Amino acid sequence: MAVIDLKSDTVTKPGEEMRKAMYEAEVGDDVYGEDPTVIALEKKAAALTGKEAALFVVSGTMGNLVSLLTHCSPGDGAILGQKSHIYYYEAGGMSALGGILPLTVDDSQGIPSVEDISHWCRPANVHFAPARLLCLENTHNKGGGIAVSPSTFREVAEGAREMGLAIHLDGARIFNAAAAWNVGADEFTTHVDSVQICLSKGLGAPVGSLICASSTFIEEARYWRKKVGGGMRQAGIIAAGGLYSLENNIERLAEDHCNAALMAGILAEAGIEVEESPQSTNMVFFKTPSSLDEEMFLSSCFSKGVQFSSVEPGRFRLVTHIDVSREQVIQASHIIAKEVQCWS
Amino acid sequence: MAVIDLKSDTVTKPGEEMRKAMYEAEVGDDVYGEDPTVIALEKKAAALTGKEAALFVVSGTMGNLVSLLTHCSPGDGAILGQKSHIYYYEAGGMSALGGILPLTVDDSQGIPSVEDISHWCRPANVHFAPARLLCLENTHNKGGGIAVSPSTFREVAEGAREMGLAIHLDGARIFNAAAAWNVGADEFTTHVDSVQICLSKGLGAPVGSLICASSTFIEEARYWRKKVGGGMRQAGIIAAGGLYSLENNIERLAEDHCNAALMAGILAEAGIEVEESPQSTNMVFFKTPSSLDEEMFLSSCFSKGVQFSSVEPGRFRLVTHIDVSREQVIQASHIIAKEVQCWS
Amino acid sequence: MAVIDLKSDTVTKPGEEMRKAMYEAEVGDDVYGEDPTVIALEKKAAALTGKEAALFVVSGTMGNLVSLLTHCSPGDGAILGQKSHIYYYEAGGMSALGGILPLTVDDSQGIPSVEDISHWCRPANVHFAPARLLCLENTHNKGGGIAVSPSTFREVAEGAREMGLAIHLDGARIFNAAAAWNVGADEFTTHVDSVQICLSKGLGAPVGSLICASSTFIEEARYWRKKVGGGMRQAGIIAAGGLYSLENNIERLAEDHCNAALMAGILAEAGIEVEESPQSTNMVFFKTPSSLDEEMFLSSCFSKGVQFSSVEPGRFRLVTHIDVSREQVIQASHIIAKEVQCWS
Amino acid sequence: MAVIDLKSDTVTKPGEEMRKAMYEAEVGDDVYGEDPTVIALEKKAAALTGKEAALFVVSGTMGNLVSLLTHCSPGDGAILGQKSHIYYYEAGGMSALGGILPLTVDDSQGIPSVEDISHWCRPANVHFAPARLLCLENTHNKGGGIAVSPSTFREVAEGAREMGLAIHLDGARIFNAAAAWNVGADEFTTHVDSVQICLSKGLGAPVGSLICASSTFIEEARYWRKKVGGGMRQAGIIAAGGLYSLENNIERLAEDHCNAALMAGILAEAGIEVEESPQSTNMVFFKTPSSLDEEMFLSSCFSKGVQFSSVEPGRFRLVTHIDVSREQVIQASHIIAKEVQCWS
Repeated sequence: MAVIDLKSDTVTKPGEEMRKAMYEAEVGDDVYGEDPTVIALEKKAAALTGKEAALFVVSGTMGNLVSLLTHCSPGDGAILGQKSHIYYYEAGGMSALGGILPLTVDDSQGIPSVEDISHWCRPANVHFAPARLLCLENTHNKGGGIAVSPSTFREVAEGAREMGLAIHLDGARIFNAAAAWNVGADEFTTHVDSVQICLSKGLGAPVGSLICASSTFIEEARYWRKKVGGGMRQAGIIAAGGLYSLENNIERLAEDHCNAALMAGILAEAGIEVEESPQSTNMVFFKTPSSLDEEMFLSSCFSKGVQFSSVEPGRFRLVTHIDVSREQVIQASHIIAKEVQCWS
Repeated sequence: MAVIDLKSDTVTKPGEEMRKAMYEAEVGDDVYGEDPTVIALEKKAAALTGKEAALFVVSGTMGNLVSLLTHCSPGDGAILGQKSHIYYYEAGGMSALGGILPLTVDDSQGIPSVEDISHWCRPANVHFAPARLLCLENTHNKGGGIAVSPSTFREVAEGAREMGLAIHLDGARIFNAAAAWNVGADEFTTHVDSVQICLSKGLGAPVGSLICASSTFIEEARYWRKKVGGGMRQAGIIAAGGLYSLENNIERLAEDHCNAALMAGILAEAGIEVEESPQSTNMVFFKTPSSLDEEMFLSSCFSKGVQFSSVEPGRFRLVTHIDVSREQVIQASHIIAKEVQCWS
Repeated sequence: MAVIDLKSDTVTKPGEEMRKAMYEAEVGDDVYGEDPTVIALEKKAAALTGKEAALFVVSGTMGNLVSLLTHCSPGDGAILGQKSHIYYYEAGGMSALGGILPLTVDDSQGIPSVEDISHWCRPANVHFAPARLLCLENTHNKGGGIAVSPSTFREVAEGAREMGLAIHLDGARIFNAAAAWNVGADEFTTHVDSVQICLSKGLGAPVGSLICASSTFIEEARYWRKKVGGGMRQAGIIAAGGLYSLENNIERLAEDHCNAALMAGILAEAGIEVEESPQSTNMVFFKTPSSLDEEMFLSSCFSKGVQFSSVEPGRFRLVTHIDVSREQVIQASHIIAKEVQCWS
Repeated sequence: MAVIDLKSDTVTKPGEEMRKAMYEAEVGDDVYGEDPTVIALEKKAAALTGKEAALFVVSGTMGNLVSLLTHCSPGDGAILGQKSHIYYYEAGGMSALGGILPLTVDDSQGIPSVEDISHWCRPANVHFAPARLLCLENTHNKGGGIAVSPSTFREVAEGAREMGLAIHLDGARIFNAAAAWNVGADEFTTHVDSVQICLSKGLGAPVGSLICASSTFIEEARYWRKKVGGGMRQAGIIAAGGLYSLENNIERLAEDHCNAALMAGILAEAGIEVEESPQSTNMVFFKTPSSLDEEMFLSSCFSKGVQFSSVEPGRFRLVTHIDVSREQVIQASHIIAKEVQCWS
């Protein structure tokens, strides 16, 4: 029995056509700037985000880290959400490797308020780590996959810019945000200095992310990528998978969103406490009664063919993606609903 | 006209007897461990805090930094309050120089709750900066000079210890906390692994702080002190001032607290919004109407002989200390009350 | 006309069979430990180096960086050669990201002497960054591709161990060293705590390196890999290329060495100053008269179909590899000989 | 019996007049810029070195560290001597806290050659940590207290500047260098961007150093001083000692040099291998036969009233200073000569 894997959109495996693209990829030594497929991928990503240039990196975490290292020096402050991926899930790299102080703000609505941001823009004083950078995230993973609207996004970005902050966007799922609001990704990326986009999440490529920004920024980021060990040789093999995903898999993200909405509906109907999101994307978060035995619940779902995990005690995340069909989504929803009842 | 300086208890100047102690201090080269006055000071501080050993450092910031560098490695997380001095006022040194990720919690009550602390004690996982250390602060400066009680302090410390955390106390004003609760400082310091105490605040010495901890910890801290450039030669000169302050100025802190209470009373009676604190120490915070012109207000007070500053827009801090007498406190309170009225 | 590219063994492109292996690779999400091809590759590498475990990383630089971060804390000293790749070519990552102080020694013979190493093993003292780690490199790139013998290697390693040092081997080309001395790679790796091996140099895989060490070390290294952004998702695609290279391309490295020797002979015969190496591998270094116009010389060679570069003024490096046949090597040698004469 | 302490010029103790200056010092809170004695000291130091501004710090190590942090960012390279104090004796702080990569050069002549410096000025390339800074040291401690001449110093500095390097001078004993060449300290400091001078060595003050540089540089250095915890409150107490030393003790350094020469002569005459220095200052280095039992030798000298130490096996350093009279120097020389004979 094939398991319906809803634990993340990172689990997607390359399909036949994407594999073929990688098989046939023209390659070269990218450290010498000689890999044509990497160059094509970087051009494509820059175009999609409306930036001058792009840099291929190994992971979303590396894309964010290299961006932050390029923006900030040790002792600089970066304003970011308490629940942001960079702060919560990236192993403290920003401080450990970059000496950057996170200045945390509330982001339970997916994006911090201009007012909260302004509290960290303190006057120059030897006691204060100066705020240099604002980090945004859209869609917001830990916030529930919430897609912040283009207008709210612009408003916050403009507010931050007026305070003299540079802006980095963790756009690991920016194409999901664009799909949710039915706009191009550049409706968001236009308002930031740098953006990191992931190929290996909803887009279904095996490996890779890109930093998109000005040519000057990318030139400096290239140095930091080398320093962290992210320089690759014949990277065209995996870049080909990424290029395929940008050319073929953006449009279909809307399906994942429909599937997630469907799933949320079935669960809610079965009496489960589903987190409502103003603008749903490809994630469904639900809560279970404190009486539920988590370990038993998850392993029982797994034995019935559905895999996912908890993000904190009593709170679970389901993620739809290219490798899960509508039928599987419906099937999984019913299994989960039944098991919640069973183990509560 | 002598200005009544209420902007901080750091402004205190050494008196005649303390100066004489410094003048006569026996000294040696402390880098070689040959300064008898430094050794005596370290012994005294260790005894007062119930620790095996102590290390003389230049400032409270250095005491906290060296302690954190000794507790943590880059990529470790340190749980501390959003308003804690280490996070807010120490220029991001913990991240800039130590690569430590601050894991922020609410400390508006002076000390974080065990529950909030527990949220950062996540399972071992490559995505997470592991929480290694809890930093407490008592009295809590930005929180309003609030003195957390020995029982609450112990409860939180014990909770943290059960979660496997080491504990550092920013005890810059721990003798104020002890005076407020009428206990010895060791009622607090007993529950932590390391504590930093300041000589140059309410105690009135010109320069210096001490880290108090186990002998092993102090041995390692000595390496970090050297690395940050905190090794001194004939440090006995200033250590003599510190030793004098520990021997003579702890008892009198209660006077500063009385003076602060008196001041709070006069201001409140005059209709000013004074922040009430469950256990007041040597600080008074008050708020002014939004109509008040801060700059004019402060400079007018100054011209009338009273100096202090705002900690954020519309919120002001007054600090009593050894260089301000009861008469001056009363006088200053009336001047401030009048000026608030005048500039609102 | 196809260019004969001798600038590095990193320029090799995957052949048909290797591409097929990647095309058919079974994959999973390696961040969740679910990629079977990555697991197989790590097992193979561990076996070849006689270590308990291995970790797949993106590049040799990342392999070295993650190893050093695992061995050392900020303020630790790492003893390494003045010409070592880690010190000279890895952008200062060890200090920039790890806070490690390089303690440099002479390595013009490919490996430092035990006596020179001992000079950095100073007594414990707050003034000294304590030496924790010795880094070796075999074959030694900037030293001329020199392969240090198993007996010399062991002698130095044992000497270092007696002084209490841990040992890391930059084994980017350890299989070349093994081929040169006709031994297994484990004849070297047995004597070190950690070794980094490269798949994308002489072995011909497109991307990737491995750290091989004890299970405990690899477990900790996994955390550092995540922090620098080296965690990959369906990494099996490129791991398949690496696995193919370990299974098929080690034996043939001897051919590259023969080709290099042939090339050295032709150049020397033509009167060019070729650096003699006690144990030649796949690199030839030669010097040119100071009268030679480097830029013209290199571009003229290129126009004749031969590509390579200078490592410092008047010193050039030629590297043989899987994508250069014996015929091409002979052809290239004659072209270079002619051009040296022409541009001197 | 009073011990004649020749182990360093850092052991000097403040005399009666200097103590009086400290006793009477006018002070204020220097974190608020209100300490008049600190301000006076900084002005005096700036004037002596021909710089716009100066910053009072706790130690020479802090002065060097804060200067390097101000000059460089993580990943930058700093060219410095293999035997320089910053590299050898400052606990790796430059890498541990600043992420700076030391690019080492030969400084056995007290100053590196322009040619050696130029080797580290490599073209811009992602593989290289870019060289940003050159660090010089005069007099050169581990090099034997050697005083580099103004002309050689200028020549090297000008060469470095042409290569685009900034220059920092570890001038812990720059007044000794100036005395040796009978010039003002500014003959050297004019050619560098920043200089650190020590008050607690030959000048005899108990604690403190100064960074002298442009106003802009000092402004930024102030931030780094705060971050490392070097901000002091009523620092005027110790600044007064430093100010006294700058006003009274510079001229007399020549005496220490005469005494050292005298000592070298007596030892050499007794057949001891004294290191000859082209321009001697206040240090004498001598070597002993390998047969000599170091521990016994040193402890026997000590029991006879002379204290000093070895800098490496079989090499000893003697330092003359304000607290050692000519008579004591002669007496000590004879004791040492006798003991060498006795324990060899």
